[in-house]
Amino acid sequence: MARINENYLKLKAGYLFPEIARRVNAFADANPQAKVIRLGIGDVVKGIPRVIVEAMKEAAEELAYDESFQGYPPEQGLEFLRQAVAENEFGARGIDIEADEVFISDGSKCDSGNIQEIFGIDNIVALTDPVYPVYCDSNVMAGRTGQADEAGRYAGLEYLPCTADNGFMPPLPEGHVDLIYLCSPNNPTGAVMTRETLAQWVSYARREKAIILFDAAYEGYITDDTIPHSIFEVEGAREVAIEFRSFSKNCGFTGTRCAFTVVPKELKAYTSAGEAADVHGAWLRRQSTKFNGVSYPVQRGAAASYTPEGRQAVRQLIDFYLGNARYMRQQLEAAGIVVYGGQHAPYLWLQMPAGQDSWGFFDTLLQQAHVVGTPGAGFGAAGEGYFRLSAFNQREAVEEAMDRILGM
Amino acid sequence: MARINENYLKLKAGYLFPEIARRVNAFADANPQAKVIRLGIGDVVKGIPRVIVEAMKEAAEELAYDESFQGYPPEQGLEFLRQAVAENEFGARGIDIEADEVFISDGSKCDSGNIQEIFGIDNIVALTDPVYPVYCDSNVMAGRTGQADEAGRYAGLEYLPCTADNGFMPPLPEGHVDLIYLCSPNNPTGAVMTRETLAQWVSYARREKAIILFDAAYEGYITDDTIPHSIFEVEGAREVAIEFRSFSKNCGFTGTRCAFTVVPKELKAYTSAGEAADVHGAWLRRQSTKFNGVSYPVQRGAAASYTPEGRQAVRQLIDFYLGNARYMRQQLEAAGIVVYGGQHAPYLWLQMPAGQDSWGFFDTLLQQAHVVGTPGAGFGAAGEGYFRLSAFNQREAVEEAMDRILGM
Repeated sequence: MARINENYLKLKAGYLFPEIARRVNAFADANPQAKVIRLGIGDVVKGIPRVIVEAMKEAAEELAYDESFQGYPPEQGLEFLRQAVAENEFGARGIDIEADEVFISDGSKCDSGNIQEIFGIDNIVALTDPVYPVYCDSNVMAGRTGQADEAGRYAGLEYLPCTADNGFMPPLPEGHVDLIYLCSPNNPTGAVMTRETLAQWVSYARREKAIILFDAAYEGYITDDTIPHSIFEVEGAREVAIEFRSFSKNCGFTGTRCAFTVVPKELKAYTSAGEAADVHGAWLRRQSTKFNGVSYPVQRGAAASYTPEGRQAVRQLIDFYLGNARYMRQQLEAAGIVVYGGQHAPYLWLQMPAGQDSWGFFDTLLQQAHVVGTPGAGFGAAGEGYFRLSAFNQREAVEEAMDRILGM
Repeated sequence: MARINENYLKLKAGYLFPEIARRVNAFADANPQAKVIRLGIGDVVKGIPRVIVEAMKEAAEELAYDESFQGYPPEQGLEFLRQAVAENEFGARGIDIEADEVFISDGSKCDSGNIQEIFGIDNIVALTDPVYPVYCDSNVMAGRTGQADEAGRYAGLEYLPCTADNGFMPPLPEGHVDLIYLCSPNNPTGAVMTRETLAQWVSYARREKAIILFDAAYEGYITDDTIPHSIFEVEGAREVAIEFRSFSKNCGFTGTRCAFTVVPKELKAYTSAGEAADVHGAWLRRQSTKFNGVSYPVQRGAAASYTPEGRQAVRQLIDFYLGNARYMRQQLEAAGIVVYGGQHAPYLWLQMPAGQDSWGFFDTLLQQAHVVGTPGAGFGAAGEGYFRLSAFNQREAVEEAMDRILGM
């Protein structure tokens, strides 16, 4: 009798964004005349820069000829892209990352969901609350948790609440944990970790022989040069951290699919006998066995983002979305709403009036303003009382959404 | 102390193909003048049909404009491609598969490696021997096995030896197993399962409440209409099978990356309490959580393979490789070598002279003929004594490789 992975049965109903999509579709079906504005899922809306599109088209054209056909790419990425990433994302900032520590992939969601596989099932996992659901759900599926309580907190996970009271900065765990998911600029709160805060985490991880899984998919949105773009800007991080990065939110690759994960060669995890084991080699083995590399035209497109023309166009895209975020903040604050984030991130984190339920607010906003946001509770129990709005939309839509919300 | 997944330490040295690549690179570095002919890894060499390349370029161009930009695709695939697959691959053969039972992905390797995640750790897994290494290694990584013995057989797996003695047809397990990996046309042996053989397996699976994981990535190479292209041609398979398919070997998508997996809605696995659980929903949840869909231009390209022009071009590609295989068979057989496969598959499975070691033959072939093949032992203990040659190369290279091998 084939047995199901019963850990899946512990998962709360639907992954957050499909659940939102279902509610929006139901509303749209019932109200076909309503012009719904989507500030929910963090999907970009602007066209991909010309230089990147041309590179993809040229690469596709190469595939048509035997002489220039490209077959299986290396699972860990094509050399030209690994080199470009190492030089432009790290070398240019004085960070020491080698090309063969960069693993090109089809998405940060995939990598941050899969990374837990290479670690033992008995690790104690710490997560911020609120949190990007993938970190949590992938550990539930793997069996590192018990059942969820009514608030959606799974037994066995260490939750680090991030609320207005602590400036949305995760507190260091009181006891020992083994794996720590951090995200800065943060999805969903928009908060950023300073160099000093990150250094405290690196220091904690070194002391506890823990590993930090650092999601920096939104680093392009940092507008203050004192804030680290990479955890590897912090001394000693190479021994304790993995970093996830993406081409989605800067180059507009949400539908094109390219990302990368950095695993330094010094990084060690341990056997039950206490022997050090190579994490870089384990991830290489995982990717070699269960992944087959990223589409050739996509890798060529990603590399074109590092040309002078590409860099300028990507900067313009980010500035556009940051301009939206600034406008949204101004409008909402002028209306007396307490707003966090939106300065170094494309997300605004609204504090709701006391007693307002975030899924209830989601439904109200959808019904009355025809605007889609993301309920804070969808990101964890400590997200209740907050609501995420994304700045990823056309300016006109953002302005109309603000008018509608403020007119509610 | 972060703990490594110790199951990874059970894995034998390097995944097969990276290990081959390492040996070939070492040889090429030491012999820069040698013209190495690659008949090893199953990578295609012919350009992608024009109609597919044009669709990819058009789709890339759409991404450049806000009006036609495509963001996150649905994790399970875009509707137009799911529909095209359901109609062309199944409906056209009279097989009842709905579009929402088709999950588009970035590769059969990924899907056949990831599928085991949705099943419990205590399932008994049956594999053919020889076998595509991903089925085995992904279960080792998940902890469904003990250590490997000297022949590379892992404790806890049920091996089904496929040799010349049984015509390379896996024998039904003597006892109970829960999950069964089958591959037809077979990689590496090139053998195909008849309707009668498949029906026996479906019957076994129904009786034992087992699930068959059926890899049909090479179905396009079947040249005999009586041989099933899909396990779903067999009555009753919808309740007991999942099927993996790919655009790699027919459309030349090894470097472009697109595949699909069919999970019928009737398929059930069971909890430890014996309650039926929905497998389709579990895979949807897995993909929604840890995957983010396939690149938009790639999905558009895959869909173009179903246009009349696309179908004709794909047929020509397959016929070209089958022509290579036919030539290789003729040459090798004329030289007195016993050859299996190569009739409904792009792989020839050579029986080596008694006592010849397959990795030794790999090295000899590389050193003396500068030809790369794949040692049978790399696919499992029962693959020892055999050697795989792929028909995926230009005709000229295939002819020269045969000349060199026969002149050794």
